[in-house]
Amino acid sequence: MSFKNIDEGDLQYFRLVLGEHYVHTAAAHLQRCATDETEDLVCLPEAVLQPGNTHEVSQLMRYCNERRIPVTPRGAGTGLSGGALPAMGGVVLDMKRFDKILHIDTRNFQVTTEPGVITEVLQETVRAHGLYYPPDPASKGSCFIGGNVSENSGGPRAVKYGVVKDYVLNLEVVLPDGSVIWTGANVLKNATGYNLTQLLVGSEGTLAVITKIVLRLLPAVQHDMLLLAPFRSAVAACEAVNAIFLAGYTPSALEFMERDALEWSLRYTHTEWITLPDDVQAHLLVEVDGNHPETLLAEMEGIAAVVQRYDVGELLLAESHDQKQKLWALRRKVGEAVKSHSVYKEEDTVVPRAELPELLRIVKEIGREYGFKSVCYGHAGDGNLHVNIVKGDMDDAAWEEEVPRGIRKLFSEVVRMGGTLSGEHGIGLVQKEYMDIAFSDVQLDLMRRLKNVFDPNGILNPGKIFVNN
Amino acid sequence: MSFKNIDEGDLQYFRLVLGEHYVHTAAAHLQRCATDETEDLVCLPEAVLQPGNTHEVSQLMRYCNERRIPVTPRGAGTGLSGGALPAMGGVVLDMKRFDKILHIDTRNFQVTTEPGVITEVLQETVRAHGLYYPPDPASKGSCFIGGNVSENSGGPRAVKYGVVKDYVLNLEVVLPDGSVIWTGANVLKNATGYNLTQLLVGSEGTLAVITKIVLRLLPAVQHDMLLLAPFRSAVAACEAVNAIFLAGYTPSALEFMERDALEWSLRYTHTEWITLPDDVQAHLLVEVDGNHPETLLAEMEGIAAVVQRYDVGELLLAESHDQKQKLWALRRKVGEAVKSHSVYKEEDTVVPRAELPELLRIVKEIGREYGFKSVCYGHAGDGNLHVNIVKGDMDDAAWEEEVPRGIRKLFSEVVRMGGTLSGEHGIGLVQKEYMDIAFSDVQLDLMRRLKNVFDPNGILNPGKIFVNN
Repeated sequence: MSFKNIDEGDLQYFRLVLGEHYVHTAAAHLQRCATDETEDLVCLPEAVLQPGNTHEVSQLMRYCNERRIPVTPRGAGTGLSGGALPAMGGVVLDMKRFDKILHIDTRNFQVTTEPGVITEVLQETVRAHGLYYPPDPASKGSCFIGGNVSENSGGPRAVKYGVVKDYVLNLEVVLPDGSVIWTGANVLKNATGYNLTQLLVGSEGTLAVITKIVLRLLPAVQHDMLLLAPFRSAVAACEAVNAIFLAGYTPSALEFMERDALEWSLRYTHTEWITLPDDVQAHLLVEVDGNHPETLLAEMEGIAAVVQRYDVGELLLAESHDQKQKLWALRRKVGEAVKSHSVYKEEDTVVPRAELPELLRIVKEIGREYGFKSVCYGHAGDGNLHVNIVKGDMDDAAWEEEVPRGIRKLFSEVVRMGGTLSGEHGIGLVQKEYMDIAFSDVQLDLMRRLKNVFDPNGILNPGKIFVNN
Repeated sequence: MSFKNIDEGDLQYFRLVLGEHYVHTAAAHLQRCATDETEDLVCLPEAVLQPGNTHEVSQLMRYCNERRIPVTPRGAGTGLSGGALPAMGGVVLDMKRFDKILHIDTRNFQVTTEPGVITEVLQETVRAHGLYYPPDPASKGSCFIGGNVSENSGGPRAVKYGVVKDYVLNLEVVLPDGSVIWTGANVLKNATGYNLTQLLVGSEGTLAVITKIVLRLLPAVQHDMLLLAPFRSAVAACEAVNAIFLAGYTPSALEFMERDALEWSLRYTHTEWITLPDDVQAHLLVEVDGNHPETLLAEMEGIAAVVQRYDVGELLLAESHDQKQKLWALRRKVGEAVKSHSVYKEEDTVVPRAELPELLRIVKEIGREYGFKSVCYGHAGDGNLHVNIVKGDMDDAAWEEEVPRGIRKLFSEVVRMGGTLSGEHGIGLVQKEYMDIAFSDVQLDLMRRLKNVFDPNGILNPGKIFVNN
């Protein structure tokens, strides 16, 4: 694809559509939209556009499509695969003005929202109406719901409640040619034509720009209990994960943290009330929820009994809402703590849950072979392990050459185990080199041709998912 | 599209691939594959092919694709939208030999199955391993899991457990050019490229032929309770449905039956132990399930209290497993009872749940306007109402001309309420004339172009979903 650079005539059109105030070319704006939370990547756009409604998005898309100007939609910039970075220049479509929750349908347990609403704000707003939107990525306090839909995000509650795709009923989207369509209907069951909604969810902003989202909601859950369990063997902690499910329990969260993950988070958050004995290699954080406290207590006792079959330290059952919040904050801050510690690469591996112990063993084995240290944590109940490869004092040559070879080997093992490249972060810029491990040419060609149906000129978020596009 | 008729040379090739025994041109075979459970439709194929493995399907597809021979995949022929009928002639790909459950992964709560396994057989087989596959269409005792995936089927349990799409992790499919691919991975979370799996589910056999299915399973549920509640007003019964959810309960089934539906089923099944007082207009069948009997009892008491705010007759709480089975059999036989009663057309309307009372009122109003009688029943908890328009003694001219106009008006109202044409039966042959009510030209064109990516020659299940294809 060859793209056009933006010139003064383009900027004049953008200003005509959006007004002066929402077209930015100043360095500070370009730099703000040149990074997200993915490693240390920087891709500068030529301009940042801030549309305020669907009609404006439609006008911008039609214009850029006709002129072959790359368009990269951007939410809050919390992505972990570089999905919001303008890899080919052009304009960033900054969706922050789409910040309104449009309608909470308390009769039908649905919410219609714009994509620029912060996920936690959405959760708290519907919670005030007795309703629950479960998907809760670690960045929920800052990420946008539109980004979550684009990446099919997960989070700790996915193990019981599913990921974003399980909540999206309908989307208003703008196609590259400026057409505006809804992808489905506001219903719980739908067997009417092809499932455009599910094709759009997780398409990483490469098929269309999301302008409205209809989510189904659940009745709010009344009670929960939270347990932190220290294990003397990290592999044993992974084994305990599946043992909990085999014993018949479905926790509402089942998180794994290697020792370093928790230790760095404790340091990063200046937390001192948790001590980390020298012989602890990993922790599980286990939550159960429901509306009947006595049932929860029975479940948590059962889970504790499973955990105690392994070589564990003292179990910590959170005693108050405040203590639960603190434990969850520690878990959610692991990513930032790792990021602040060293240059790193994060692999979002996912395997069938029972393969988790083998995955962890293989990660460490490959690390020894290729000379890298890793810190692993993640949504163990889903088989979704975030493997953070930290640069530390590794020299640049090894970092640039050996580590990608190690990652390639890791993904080959993951696919052999029935898993795949990304559980919830998406492919974006940073994993596209590995797509050939998960997919044959036939599969990749099919995906490219689907992309071409939506975006024949290839202007929408170019450079993502596929190696050559 | 112009298609080629089958000649002796084609039959020779089919016999070469499959062997004599699995290529059929005798009238009895052609007639068996000329109908399904949809109204009174008949479409004769030119030959019936019975492949036994993926490689054979691949060879047949490549051959038919090159020669423009229509291919219509067929499961058990229980479909309700004509999806398995060879509308343009050609061959029926009868998948009955794909009848093996290949692997029950008890460690990961997954099953890999061929598509020709009867849904209830699959459910009972995994149940013997302590696992649960929830989707349970009324035809579960005879339908194939492959057909369920193709139509994104639902059933009573969808209200709590979701529909087929919520259980499909991965599919092996054969594309029209003979390529064999897997659509995803055997994982609970997946953000790796476009979601081919979800695009295939519910695509009604128009994009690819499904040859293997990987489903996620749940731990088996231990207990359930079942309540039959007679209402003196059918609209009030629909109102009670939403009141149950607003009171905080999520039943594992919440079915609505108009008086005639139950009465005809009682007659059809020769059931005499249930009496139907003259003043009863409708019933709700409400199930709760879970692992804690005392919790279930509390929930059922709460639901009964909600129901008793309305003008209801005596509530019947099933007292034994046997009585539950009998009540469920009555509900499942309603479709057959209606079919045996008269020529009919079934509309699979679905609206946001709270709009159900309005939908029922509108159905009856349109019936009065266009001169037809209807019997309504269905999965009320999902807002999914099966509207059965019975011909009875209506003259043929009115049946052919007035009724379709009434249906068009009904679907327009459904869409106005936020609903759509089909909740779980699919579009197939019988609803394609109404697609313009739910979708704009832009949406339909997008779907057609997706079809074209998979099937550029249009040989796979032609004549379905779209008016012109």
